[in-house]
This record gives sequence, structure tokens and C-alpha cells, in this order.
Amino acid sequence: MVVTVGGQQALDLVARIFLDPGDVVLAEGPTYVGALGVFQAAQAQVVHVPMDGDGLVPEALEQAIAEVARSGRRAKFLYTIPTFQNPAGVTLTEERRERVLDICERAGLLVVEDDPYGQLSFDGEAPAPLRSRRRDGVFYLSTFSKTFAPGMRVGWILAPHAVREKLVIASEAQILCPSAYAQAAIATYLSTMPWREQLKTYREIYRERRDALLAALADLMPAGTSWTEPKGGLFVWATLPQGLDAKAMMPRSIAARVAYVPGTGFYADGTGAGHMRLNFSFPPPERIREGVRRLAGVMEQELAMRQVFGAMGGHAARRRGQAAADAPDPGLA
Amino acid sequence: MVVTVGGQQALDLVARIFLDPGDVVLAEGPTYVGALGVFQAAQAQVVHVPMDGDGLVPEALEQAIAEVARSGRRAKFLYTIPTFQNPAGVTLTEERRERVLDICERAGLLVVEDDPYGQLSFDGEAPAPLRSRRRDGVFYLSTFSKTFAPGMRVGWILAPHAVREKLVIASEAQILCPSAYAQAAIATYLSTMPWREQLKTYREIYRERRDALLAALADLMPAGTSWTEPKGGLFVWATLPQGLDAKAMMPRSIAARVAYVPGTGFYADGTGAGHMRLNFSFPPPERIREGVRRLAGVMEQELAMRQVFGAMGGHAARRRGQAAADAPDPGLA
Repeated sequence: MVVTVGGQQALDLVARIFLDPGDVVLAEGPTYVGALGVFQAAQAQVVHVPMDGDGLVPEALEQAIAEVARSGRRAKFLYTIPTFQNPAGVTLTEERRERVLDICERAGLLVVEDDPYGQLSFDGEAPAPLRSRRRDGVFYLSTFSKTFAPGMRVGWILAPHAVREKLVIASEAQILCPSAYAQAAIATYLSTMPWREQLKTYREIYRERRDALLAALADLMPAGTSWTEPKGGLFVWATLPQGLDAKAMMPRSIAARVAYVPGTGFYADGTGAGHMRLNFSFPPPERIREGVRRLAGVMEQELAMRQVFGAMGGHAARRRGQAAADAPDPGLA
Repeated sequence: MVVTVGGQQALDLVARIFLDPGDVVLAEGPTYVGALGVFQAAQAQVVHVPMDGDGLVPEALEQAIAEVARSGRRAKFLYTIPTFQNPAGVTLTEERRERVLDICERAGLLVVEDDPYGQLSFDGEAPAPLRSRRRDGVFYLSTFSKTFAPGMRVGWILAPHAVREKLVIASEAQILCPSAYAQAAIATYLSTMPWREQLKTYREIYRERRDALLAALADLMPAGTSWTEPKGGLFVWATLPQGLDAKAMMPRSIAARVAYVPGTGFYADGTGAGHMRLNFSFPPPERIREGVRRLAGVMEQELAMRQVFGAMGGHAARRRGQAAADAPDPGLA
């Protein structure tokens, strides 16, 4: 195990060790925005692999591996958040976990498993991590940010033995070591406090909020909107009615005092405008419902405007509609 | 200002922003071993510039800049620890500070000023930092590691305005942010505790220990040994009698239960075997004297062995002597 400055440094260290400029990283589309930043800093290319409600689609992974190989590029690893994915909220099923691992093994592709949310399951235990199924080909990254406090900046990597020392040396060159003060606080917390009970409390709070969000979406969203139903974690991924652009709609949403993250941030290629990430972890249920009510209002207005401008042949609306239509996401159907 | 995970991340961020593989970094010889690790990770080449008792030699800096330019390579910045240098213990004089800045300005060379020890002056105040003389061409790096606690891992960069945002973005991709918990502890300490008084205490303790080390060296070291006389900081740089090799001597020193850092670690090119860094910050005066006594004993033995083997034409002694003789350091005379 290598202790890191949160999950972010864990990712950065793995990228630093493995990636050369021009290398390809396979990753779910959409994926964690901070991972895209790391891969971009390493001058790697991200090839997105689509998901559905059961997580990463194995056939699509095989296809992506083949396409990268055909193009003469070198895929170094699959970066995946198999459990309560950020931002999609979906979880790779038991059966698919084995298939994804087999595919990667056959292709000689390392797996970087990012698991910040695995402890935050609402409906029974999450499937066991990929790392627990294959020790050698999988890097397992996690953090105390979602289960203790993000401000501690303490995470870890479980790495195959052969590269552990390289990760330590890379970390020393970068930061010497993570704050010993923060590490000591977490060690004391884990050894003296009922942290398993605390996790249960988080799970109950977040489950209640997820339920509130899903109920409000079902009651209030305009026709044509769809969304994922997470079994844990912090996020719901919503797909907007045809033609709506989450990024363009953002200023009006903020004016209505409701916020989300537009889908575009979660793709390396600028697609995703037809989606948004909704985070249910912080507001209590009644505020979640109020937020969805306001968001639905903004979307209704937007749809009405589109209709008016569409009838008038309005340029702005067409352009905006076009931008969303031009960007078919490789992501969730 | 950009807050960092200690001085190490400060250095790494500057390297990440400015260095491409093959770039040249000018640095004092000897210099901080952790900086060499950062530059190596960035695949940059380090060109050492010699110092004398007054710090970096301006004429040698001009010469190094000219040689790098002649060789068609690109020097990106001068990395310097002008005050109580690690490992040399010397301080760039007032007069030389202006000259070094002028030289860099003329050559269009950025200056990365690493100042972890500036607050630890023993004989009056240290000269003002380079950054206080030229705001635009100088990055100033410092840390609370030597004045509060290294385990906090909190440092900072004062950067020219134009690149501050780039440093923040690079830091976010790397670690998101330094531990907020550690930052809060330091902020509370600085705003509620008499930290200036604490600095005075450190200065007194370290001055006493420096004095003990210099006195012991003068009393006990074999003829032919020389050393620097630091006006602050933590280190004395010793130059061994002709033919002694600090790295080869290390196992015998450890057997005698006295430790130092061989000079080779502080040069990018493997030279420095004729030198050692002595750190006087931790042991109390009586143990410092005992340490020097033991170290002198190891050196006397080594010299005696060399004489015997030398008289016998011994291969090992010649080889060892040769290694030191083959490695004329660009460093302190």
C-alpha cells in the first residue's frame, strides 16, 4: 500500500509512472473530471467506453481496445470507477466484473480501479472490487475523502508489488509524503472511534437523499428527461430532453439558485452537453425537491423558448439545439 | 501565493510548468537532493554552478549560461538556495545577490529561489530574499517544515502573477489541494501563538549546536579536512583530505555509530565523493562533539589504511583514491 494525498495524487502517481505523451487511456464516458485533468497533464489521449445501467459495456471495451490497436496507438490502462460511478451513478455488475477483467487480461491492459464511493452502498453491499478478484493486473485507488473528510487529503493505492517502490519514489519526488498530521488524525479515528457505525449513518442519510432526488425527478421533470438510479455513492446522471444544452442553460439555473455540473466536463472530447450530474449528498430531502422543482422550471422555460424560436426559425436556438445534436455522447443510452 | 504540500511540491509544480525533457536547469553544485529528484523526473539536465564561501560565483554562472547556449540547449531557470544553502551552508552575499539577478535578467533566465532556512539565522538577519528585489523574474519557495513541523507538509510559492493560475491548476490535477486540516492547524498556530519567540528559540538552539560542531571540527578533524561556517540553517559541508571517499567510508562510520550524508547525493553527475554533509540540528552539543570524535577516528583509520595499502601498492586503496581524484567537484574550493 502507498499512502497518498487523497485519491487525486493516487491517480496522478499512476499516470506519472505509466503514461508517455501520446499514450491512450481507456475510460468510461462520462468519467471523473479530475482524472481527465491528470491524463491531459500527462499528454495522454482518453478514449471513452460507453456504459449502460449495468456499468461499462464489455463489448464496447473489446471494440475500443481493437480500434486503438488498429490505429497503431498504445493503450496503457483502463481507468474505471466500477462502483457508484462518478458521474453516472451506475455500478458494474458481478458478471461484468469478471468479463471486463478477462478482456483486459487478454489484451495485456492494466486496470486502474478508482473506488472512492464503494463504502457508501444503500441497497446491500456493493460487488467486491476488481482488485479482490485479480491482484496482479489491478491498481486499486481509494480515499478517506468521502468516508471521513475531504480536507484531510489522505488516500491510498494498492499496487502490484513490482511497481509499489516506483510509486513511492515518484511520490517522494512530488511531495516527500502526505501530511503526517492528517495521517495521524485518521489513524487515531480508525483505531478509537466507531467508524463502521459512522459509515452506516452516512449510508442512511445519503439513501434518504437519493430517494428524495429520484422521487422528485419522477414527479417534476419534463417529458423526455431520463436519469440513472444509483445504488450508492453521491451522483445521479440525467439526460435532458432532445435539444437542451446543460452548459448553455447553466446561467439561467444559477439565476434560479439551483446548480448542477454540465455533462461536458466529464468527457475528454467536449461532448456531453445533453447531460448533467446531480449531487444529492449535501442538501436535505426537502431542499432536494425544491431544487428539482426549480431545475424543472428552468428546463420547461428553455423548452418553451426553443419552441417559440424554433417556429420563428431563430438562429440562437437552432445553434444551441445543433450543438447538443452534434454531440452524440458515447455514454449512457 | 500558492499553498503547496511542503517545499517539495512547490518545486515539483514549478518543474512541471516549465520543464520539457532535455531542458537545462542551472543549480548550485552541490544542491538539494530532492530538487535533483524533481529535475530528473522532469527529464531535465542539471548544470551545476560552483559556489565559494560567499555562495554562488557570479562569473561561473555567466560562464555556465554561455556554455549551455553554445551547446544549443535551453536553460529554463536557475534553481538556487541563496540563504544557508543545503547542503553547503553558505549564503549568497548582498552584493552577489544583485549581480546574480542582473545576470539572470540579461540572459532571460527565471530564478527559482528556494528558501526553507531563511528564518533560521544565527548571526543577525539574513540578506533579504532575491524575490524582494525582483518581483517578476523570481519564484520564491518556502515551507513551514523547518519553522513549525515537517509532518504538516505545508509550503508555498510566491509566483509572478502571470503563472500563478497555472500553478494552481497543476496543483489541482496533482493533489486537488494541500491538507486543509494541516493548513488550519498552521493558521491557528500563527494567529494565536508566539511564533516569533519560537523562532528565536530555534535560532538559539541551532546556533549553539553549530558552534559546538565548528569547535569540534577545529579540535578533532585530521589535517587536510576543511568545512564551511554557516551563519544559519542546519548544515555544514565538509571536504575530506585528498583521497578519502565519503561514500566508501560510510559503512565504517555507521559501524562507529556516526552518520552523515556523502556528497555524491548532492550532484546530478555522481561527483562529490570527497565531501559530506553534516547536520547539526538534532543532537545536543555534547553528542555533536562525540559524533565528530568518532567520525575523526574513522577518517584517521581510513587515512592510515590508505597509507599502508598505498605503500604496498594496494589495488583497493588506489581504486578508491582514484575515484575521489577522478571526481573534481564543481563545488566549493
